[in-house]
Amino acid sequence: MSHNSIGHLFRVTTWGESHGPAIGCVVDGCPPGIALTEADLQVWLEKRKPGQSRFVTQRREPDTAKILSGVFEGVTTGTPISVMIENEDQRSKDYGDIAERFRPGHADYAYFAKYGVRDYRGGGRSSARETACRVAAGAIARKVLGEAIAIRAAVVQIGPHRIDRSRFDWSETENNPFWAPDAAIVPVWEQFLDETRKAGSSTGAVVEVEAQGVPPGWGAPIYGKLDAELAGALMSINAVKGVEIGAGFEAAQLSGEDNADEMRMGPDGPEFLSNRAGGVLGGISTGQPVVARLAFKPTSSILTPRKSIDRAGNEIEVMTKGRHDPCVGIRGAPVAEAMMACVLADAYLRHRAQTGGGAFQPGRDSRS
Amino acid sequence: MSHNSIGHLFRVTTWGESHGPAIGCVVDGCPPGIALTEADLQVWLEKRKPGQSRFVTQRREPDTAKILSGVFEGVTTGTPISVMIENEDQRSKDYGDIAERFRPGHADYAYFAKYGVRDYRGGGRSSARETACRVAAGAIARKVLGEAIAIRAAVVQIGPHRIDRSRFDWSETENNPFWAPDAAIVPVWEQFLDETRKAGSSTGAVVEVEAQGVPPGWGAPIYGKLDAELAGALMSINAVKGVEIGAGFEAAQLSGEDNADEMRMGPDGPEFLSNRAGGVLGGISTGQPVVARLAFKPTSSILTPRKSIDRAGNEIEVMTKGRHDPCVGIRGAPVAEAMMACVLADAYLRHRAQTGGGAFQPGRDSRS
Amino acid sequence: MSHNSIGHLFRVTTWGESHGPAIGCVVDGCPPGIALTEADLQVWLEKRKPGQSRFVTQRREPDTAKILSGVFEGVTTGTPISVMIENEDQRSKDYGDIAERFRPGHADYAYFAKYGVRDYRGGGRSSARETACRVAAGAIARKVLGEAIAIRAAVVQIGPHRIDRSRFDWSETENNPFWAPDAAIVPVWEQFLDETRKAGSSTGAVVEVEAQGVPPGWGAPIYGKLDAELAGALMSINAVKGVEIGAGFEAAQLSGEDNADEMRMGPDGPEFLSNRAGGVLGGISTGQPVVARLAFKPTSSILTPRKSIDRAGNEIEVMTKGRHDPCVGIRGAPVAEAMMACVLADAYLRHRAQTGGGAFQPGRDSRS
Amino acid sequence: MSHNSIGHLFRVTTWGESHGPAIGCVVDGCPPGIALTEADLQVWLEKRKPGQSRFVTQRREPDTAKILSGVFEGVTTGTPISVMIENEDQRSKDYGDIAERFRPGHADYAYFAKYGVRDYRGGGRSSARETACRVAAGAIARKVLGEAIAIRAAVVQIGPHRIDRSRFDWSETENNPFWAPDAAIVPVWEQFLDETRKAGSSTGAVVEVEAQGVPPGWGAPIYGKLDAELAGALMSINAVKGVEIGAGFEAAQLSGEDNADEMRMGPDGPEFLSNRAGGVLGGISTGQPVVARLAFKPTSSILTPRKSIDRAGNEIEVMTKGRHDPCVGIRGAPVAEAMMACVLADAYLRHRAQTGGGAFQPGRDSRS
Repeated sequence: MSHNSIGHLFRVTTWGESHGPAIGCVVDGCPPGIALTEADLQVWLEKRKPGQSRFVTQRREPDTAKILSGVFEGVTTGTPISVMIENEDQRSKDYGDIAERFRPGHADYAYFAKYGVRDYRGGGRSSARETACRVAAGAIARKVLGEAIAIRAAVVQIGPHRIDRSRFDWSETENNPFWAPDAAIVPVWEQFLDETRKAGSSTGAVVEVEAQGVPPGWGAPIYGKLDAELAGALMSINAVKGVEIGAGFEAAQLSGEDNADEMRMGPDGPEFLSNRAGGVLGGISTGQPVVARLAFKPTSSILTPRKSIDRAGNEIEVMTKGRHDPCVGIRGAPVAEAMMACVLADAYLRHRAQTGGGAFQPGRDSRS
Repeated sequence: MSHNSIGHLFRVTTWGESHGPAIGCVVDGCPPGIALTEADLQVWLEKRKPGQSRFVTQRREPDTAKILSGVFEGVTTGTPISVMIENEDQRSKDYGDIAERFRPGHADYAYFAKYGVRDYRGGGRSSARETACRVAAGAIARKVLGEAIAIRAAVVQIGPHRIDRSRFDWSETENNPFWAPDAAIVPVWEQFLDETRKAGSSTGAVVEVEAQGVPPGWGAPIYGKLDAELAGALMSINAVKGVEIGAGFEAAQLSGEDNADEMRMGPDGPEFLSNRAGGVLGGISTGQPVVARLAFKPTSSILTPRKSIDRAGNEIEVMTKGRHDPCVGIRGAPVAEAMMACVLADAYLRHRAQTGGGAFQPGRDSRS
Repeated sequence: MSHNSIGHLFRVTTWGESHGPAIGCVVDGCPPGIALTEADLQVWLEKRKPGQSRFVTQRREPDTAKILSGVFEGVTTGTPISVMIENEDQRSKDYGDIAERFRPGHADYAYFAKYGVRDYRGGGRSSARETACRVAAGAIARKVLGEAIAIRAAVVQIGPHRIDRSRFDWSETENNPFWAPDAAIVPVWEQFLDETRKAGSSTGAVVEVEAQGVPPGWGAPIYGKLDAELAGALMSINAVKGVEIGAGFEAAQLSGEDNADEMRMGPDGPEFLSNRAGGVLGGISTGQPVVARLAFKPTSSILTPRKSIDRAGNEIEVMTKGRHDPCVGIRGAPVAEAMMACVLADAYLRHRAQTGGGAFQPGRDSRS
Repeated sequence: MSHNSIGHLFRVTTWGESHGPAIGCVVDGCPPGIALTEADLQVWLEKRKPGQSRFVTQRREPDTAKILSGVFEGVTTGTPISVMIENEDQRSKDYGDIAERFRPGHADYAYFAKYGVRDYRGGGRSSARETACRVAAGAIARKVLGEAIAIRAAVVQIGPHRIDRSRFDWSETENNPFWAPDAAIVPVWEQFLDETRKAGSSTGAVVEVEAQGVPPGWGAPIYGKLDAELAGALMSINAVKGVEIGAGFEAAQLSGEDNADEMRMGPDGPEFLSNRAGGVLGGISTGQPVVARLAFKPTSSILTPRKSIDRAGNEIEVMTKGRHDPCVGIRGAPVAEAMMACVLADAYLRHRAQTGGGAFQPGRDSRS
């Protein structure tokens, strides 16, 4: 049991604070013989990197990942892969005034109550900077999964503004700084976020993440369900307050007929006529795309003064200066992809362990 | 790692199939010296028991829990507590026709694809009957938590019909067969469910579960977050497709000012002026009530014929007779309570392990 | 983390006390589709069963294992296999006098110090009765491993009397009540144990356990080493005080030349010219037989009075009547086999998870 | 589950290869508020450091530990402590000739068989260099345990030469390069090792490690036994082939009377009249010193040519040049201490989790 690890067989442990010398992760259990370079990590870290548009934090971090172990002559060796990312732009002076103060909506008070001590610089361990390690681990997970599995995320809501799902186009996500799959929403979000930022406020978002190509059979009853693992992994991302799979909360108002995805036989095996299940039934993948959505709360660091207390128990007002994402959900999209990748890599190895891998197909396979 | 276990220090392993001789759980790690009898389990099992109104399945199970180990002379000994519940009303004849058929919305196909073999009787391992074990374990968890922590659940939505939150009254949940906290919704749901049942259909629901009295400091960064553990545990309940904490998905459209709960000092320590966080910040409890909501999909067993395939790959129509809950979410309320209890008992022991227990209080405690 | 579980992917949890209604185990992670009946368990339980000769305890237990879940129509389904063994011959009256007394060499005082409460009847949870569950789980593990892997144990020392290794003959172990592989030692042990029993004393033993047919590649660095897992599993058996692999403690006085097993190419791949390593190098199996030895201390229940204290802190004399094994190591042989089987089944699944299974062979396989 | 992690609540994960850029460990679960500096680690690393006498490897490594996270303003914060040790003296040229060859007694062939690829430089992951990370983690564990618990190790046998236990004096271990507790054995070992080295050979050793001050109650049945955890941890050290607790293998020839440690009441509570149990009964500490011994095989790197094969399947002769310990057991002493510390720190936290800490004392405490 480890508070800072995730996964069972594809096991990721992260460490580091926002303003310490470095952050990093150790990935244990990676299969051997997989081609892996630092560039394979960097491509995904670039997606999460701060400072890429006016809509995200202006902290400047190169986020250069170094692989310190577990890779030899370009391939994984099956031993732990240690990845380190040095912190470079650590303007600690920005944060000195919060050493004794609990910022509303942040983990400051909770950490103090639990530990009695905390690294207050930039949120320390509770900073979203930790998510760079998730992205690095996710990059390795993608290599484990191989190219047959495609994982991608889109932002589908910012504040009250949702995309029009009839215009959903994955290719659009690369064309705007929001990972928006609907070109028409982009100017709406631009204007909304500019207003939000000027008002010294912040806003929340909803991200949708999808994995295509997941074969049937991954996951397991009862507490090792694929959707349960996914829910835990996604909820562990900073600022996430809700997770849903497939139809999600919408399923509560569906009828049994509308909810249960019907099946037919296609040329390559079973096919489903809809995907309300989000690719998971009984905790096990069905072969349909695995679909999850996650809700991010608004960034808690805002310029508007808010009531709080300090460590001495004094009542104070807190106003958070510094460089912050007005909508942390935007940079959450690559992080959600990374968590999906890590959970799937783990499920893949667990499935292979118990069954040898593969899936039984109706009309073709039989135990008897 | 175990697919059928949950918790780290308060560790619950469940076993059994719907139509096998029995189901049960083993609870390891329970503190010693806690008074515990079979009656302590039975009181909660009664809440989940089938056949208590016309709105739930008519399967008749006494659900009598026997404690086989770990309790001596009325108190827990610190060794594993084994609980067994015999299956009595196993009308296997109801299920014979589904041996070769994959019921839409059920785990049938996914289990086949993974394992190549499955106990098809009543859904086997994927049956919601397993949740009786969760409730038994949850009853033990409540004993570990003690009376200062109160856990309760309410159904807040059935199909499209939501309660009026201004009428939310926990005491009402005992007065109707729906755990509804709003007396005015009861006739609406009665009529809706009667219609649903007569139509051979089913419907979903949303359950809200809350724990009061949780002290600050429980939970831990980063992958051991209290809300992440809770999300995984609640998502693992049969038919659940979404989980949210505090403001949940609503948080996506809040502003930073509205979302971040302000703090003041009260007579007994810090107080929050709102609870959008649902009692958890940075993965650690704040002392506020821990609040989660979970969405149940409609029961997949319906009388209306649906397209599917069978094990031989033939295209078929499936119509599920037998005794089923038209709205499985109703009986999900006591199960949600049980999972909340188990997650909290685990968090309590984990917190005690790392810190010795207790919490630091502003103005009173200091490391330096 | 669970105190009463062992294994990672082939995960065994046991429960129950010596004089409770039953004992049992839950085996999670077993691959599906393996033929398994209660008779498959019984054959091994018979080997461990008490009362089979005058050299072991006269407690009469049929030790009938019932499978309550996880097996359907004769094959494993991949879901948890719950096994229950009812306690029948529970002469609690034999034990009433030890409720308040700490028997020297037993766990009585340690359990009291830890828990403040204990089931004192027959040692409660610390009774060697728990090892029946290990044997049941081991029987399932053998099915997972298949017939290519043969696991067997022999007693190689009782008290000061060691076998003559030049006469080592596995087939002899079935011909005497001691699992002795050396026919000539049998009368020596008979006389020694008769004297020991008549003197109201007891004696220790050394058991050797071997697995043939283990392919190369099982196990893993660094803390998941096959020999480390084996050491933990064997040391967890009641009364075991030492474990060694291959040459073991003897290796301390060997020279590097004598210790390192040389290699040659045989017709089917690499061959070793000796097996000082006991089949494990760097924590990974080499394809040679995996060999371990474990030392059992003498039974602590003896008729000779010994100094002790009671729960109230009084100084007392303790003399343990009742039915006991004069040499618990004898019945330890089938238990050692079971632990070897469980550890190997787990290593097999872990290896399959990370690598897909199989092994690379010099001169045949290449990554490049 | 992680191959490269140890401990449950005090959780240590190590990474790195002998000739990579660095090695390191991540310690998760450390209690907060403990004073910790890099100097606290360095003092123990110095004990293990190579090149300190002619009896150990001449590799020159400063082994400087850097703390990268989890410590703030001189105290632990409860978040993961990342420690990195850069590799400096990586004479890779020494090892180029073994890229394709399997050195007898080494892990080379086993790693190849498992992974198909390996970092052959200096043994890569299987190098004893990894034990520096154990020592660093052990230093943190000592801080968790506090000064009331003293852990120390001695070498009690080198090759066939054992110490005279009647001369056992812990203070002597600091006066010679062997950690010998018997001054009279020092010249014997010096001569023996000089001869061994000159002969291009190597030899084994036995180390004894002891923890004083461990209170009663740590550890747990059945698979979480303190001695089982210790056996696994010690057996995981490179080159260890045997582990025993207390009387160990000697217990096999003791009578029940001689083996079971008698008890009396002393001024401060229960006292034992002997310590054959090695401080552990039923897997739980008794308050006596916890005593273990571990056997190291001789270093496999020797100058004498030995038969082997290479990756292509050719039969070859291997002679290992380079800088090696003629008796790796000597430097194993501080590593054994470190593992004892880690296992005890974990047991301490586990005990505190389940019971709140502390121990029941006869005549003083009572549940009823």
